[in-house]
Amino acid sequence: MPPSALLTDLYELNMAASYLKRGMHQEATFSLFVRALPPNRGFLVSAGLEPCLGFLESFGFAEEELEHLGRELGFGDEVLDAFARLHFEGEVWAAPEGRVVYANEPLLEITAPIAVAQLVEPYLLNQITFQTTIASKAARCVLAAGGRSVVDFALRRTQGLDAAMNVARVAWIVGFSATSNVEAGRRFGLPVVGTMAHSYIESFPTEAEAFRTFALDFPDRTTFLVDTYDTLNGVRTAIEVIRELGLERNLGIRLDSGDLAELARRSRAILDQAGQQGVRIIASGGLDEFEVDRLVRSGAPIDAFGVGTRIGVSADAPYLDSAYKLVEYDGRPMIKLSPNKHTFPGRKQVFRGPDGDVLGLRDEELPAGHEPLLVPVMRGGRRTDPPPALETARELFRGDLARVPEAARRIVEPEPPEARISQGLRRLTERARRSALRAAGVL
Amino acid sequence: MPPSALLTDLYELNMAASYLKRGMHQEATFSLFVRALPPNRGFLVSAGLEPCLGFLESFGFAEEELEHLGRELGFGDEVLDAFARLHFEGEVWAAPEGRVVYANEPLLEITAPIAVAQLVEPYLLNQITFQTTIASKAARCVLAAGGRSVVDFALRRTQGLDAAMNVARVAWIVGFSATSNVEAGRRFGLPVVGTMAHSYIESFPTEAEAFRTFALDFPDRTTFLVDTYDTLNGVRTAIEVIRELGLERNLGIRLDSGDLAELARRSRAILDQAGQQGVRIIASGGLDEFEVDRLVRSGAPIDAFGVGTRIGVSADAPYLDSAYKLVEYDGRPMIKLSPNKHTFPGRKQVFRGPDGDVLGLRDEELPAGHEPLLVPVMRGGRRTDPPPALETARELFRGDLARVPEAARRIVEPEPPEARISQGLRRLTERARRSALRAAGVL
Repeated sequence: MPPSALLTDLYELNMAASYLKRGMHQEATFSLFVRALPPNRGFLVSAGLEPCLGFLESFGFAEEELEHLGRELGFGDEVLDAFARLHFEGEVWAAPEGRVVYANEPLLEITAPIAVAQLVEPYLLNQITFQTTIASKAARCVLAAGGRSVVDFALRRTQGLDAAMNVARVAWIVGFSATSNVEAGRRFGLPVVGTMAHSYIESFPTEAEAFRTFALDFPDRTTFLVDTYDTLNGVRTAIEVIRELGLERNLGIRLDSGDLAELARRSRAILDQAGQQGVRIIASGGLDEFEVDRLVRSGAPIDAFGVGTRIGVSADAPYLDSAYKLVEYDGRPMIKLSPNKHTFPGRKQVFRGPDGDVLGLRDEELPAGHEPLLVPVMRGGRRTDPPPALETARELFRGDLARVPEAARRIVEPEPPEARISQGLRRLTERARRSALRAAGVL
Repeated sequence: MPPSALLTDLYELNMAASYLKRGMHQEATFSLFVRALPPNRGFLVSAGLEPCLGFLESFGFAEEELEHLGRELGFGDEVLDAFARLHFEGEVWAAPEGRVVYANEPLLEITAPIAVAQLVEPYLLNQITFQTTIASKAARCVLAAGGRSVVDFALRRTQGLDAAMNVARVAWIVGFSATSNVEAGRRFGLPVVGTMAHSYIESFPTEAEAFRTFALDFPDRTTFLVDTYDTLNGVRTAIEVIRELGLERNLGIRLDSGDLAELARRSRAILDQAGQQGVRIIASGGLDEFEVDRLVRSGAPIDAFGVGTRIGVSADAPYLDSAYKLVEYDGRPMIKLSPNKHTFPGRKQVFRGPDGDVLGLRDEELPAGHEPLLVPVMRGGRRTDPPPALETARELFRGDLARVPEAARRIVEPEPPEARISQGLRRLTERARRSALRAAGVL
């Protein structure tokens, strides 16, 4: 079933009704962008586009939705008839999922008759803001881990289950190596990993018996959770069980509490001394990119990090200062005058070059040595291409990350670059500013 | 379609497989609680129980889910057959939605054979953590507003659309007066409100024409967004249109930027001078409980607050330190020894009395003048009662809020009360501690 067209705010329906009533079918272009990055973000990773395109392709009011609008919200028959005819037949340009994006650069621009372009605002803002928030946070974990594996453990504390699915999905885009989320693994074809919980250990008379039982059941993928009682004792018990059962493949221990750096070093020493160089050390427990960074810099011999809650809700910055602004209406460039809510008018393009990005107009000429960030993804209400494989987004991100400036890649106090503004966009901004002042009665 | 049983972590399936393989069908009790409240929370509001009960009632593996587990994750036929037979036939005690809860007090306790009780952990933790997080944040807005209306505007920036539905739902539980979210209004029977956006104003040649058009279309529910160009000019234009069209009912102006307190005062003065005492002032734009509190304390003549992003993601504390811990297995009380992860063993009850809460055991005698917080909500895998109306939770919260101590109700630096520990629970904790030390080989 396609998502409901009622996934919108009432004011969007009010405005759409008003536009349709007087035949205002002129084309509007809305631009979806992030005004400023939160502290501790040097770049954003575009995500959330795919569900938006699915929503737009299937957009329309079902019979019972129209009945509800008439009965409960007082919309008249004339308006309901107009709503019934609404579909999305417009155009979308966007930064594909996985692309690195900076402040003021459109993640998406949509052009359609103003009523429908207005109605879809909450859905588009919601999905792109949320998924870009998480992708950008998760990307920093991958950076901090410096080549070590990072695994998504967030399912239990994301803001809803739908959120957990998308966290697993965007974490994969930015380079996570697996998820613990079985349903996400099934839905998106991701590698799924899992070990055991403390409650498992506790449900056996001794730790050794718990380890032995688990290893007998999963001899080819055993990771021993060693910190239920005493971590280093737990490591020694794991070694005994490994020897006793002659285990050889995919072995690991997981540290989930305490001083992870110190425990990793001491565990590694015990394992190595016992000839168990092949046993990997996995660390988890309240980790985020700052903690992963500290652990990696300290030289802790950790092979993989399990990250959950703090990444799954982007704890230090759980939303972005995103906006969906009218930038062109009926051929006229639009701008907002409010001092803190400055917007750039017109249909845009981001020209990415060796010295950084230029924010310009879509019909400006591509500067030499630059590539366009925004590509047409829908025309006439249809996707220009079938949905790309998740692997494509993962590749795009890998390529883009290598070109993010060093200062923006820093985990602590990163400095995001700012796009330069093209000549053409400067001129259009000045023109639009003067029109807006006239509309406000100031000029 | 019921939620997938694969909405779980792989380690839960590993453990369940291991339990089932050796016929470990003993009963386990898991307790879901919050260890400590985040800064700036004086109390929590229980929420998320209802979807959990729905999930438990319908819990079971579908044929294609079992096939997936066999094909992709290597579970053997014996285990898959055992999974196929799993349903939830256990017992749940819980704090009903809308009840005020404090640290260490169970939001929910579940008793069932250990495999199934373990499998449902991620779903239960996810829903209860998330919804309780948002309900507790939203409740503070209602407190800060001191009787003025608060409206949910969060749809566009929650962490997913499913999240937006639940934000609207729990905001209603804690006393919001409406939502802008049309689908949430339909699904939960909530009042829905909406005005207009800046883009609407901009799509007309002048602000006056935009106001006039909107008022003609919605003469019985017009709120003028007055800050697109110049706020106080906008107020005067709204007054002209009100007079011109002879509008009389449900009129308002909305302030969405600038110094809201000052603009509200000056707007009120202009409106009153024009004889428009009936026109309400609605404030919005990046508000949270701290800002609402400042506005109310400053005496700003604001009648209603629209709150969005910061409430919808609980921006200052987007998750809770929740846990789902094994507290009893096969009749034995269980406890964790880790110094920072202390848990209380056994099946519990919270006794709420005039001097605060006592955390005790479920079979302890109710102290005089106390009422039990936890009630049985499922027995034998079935709800003890049909799902309550949302209004019931709203009533429960209203009643409980009146009994929250003043220090815990404060917006700035609230101090949450702590439950006292009953004699019975103290004794059981000591007993369980000694058993755990024995299992760890220390005693």
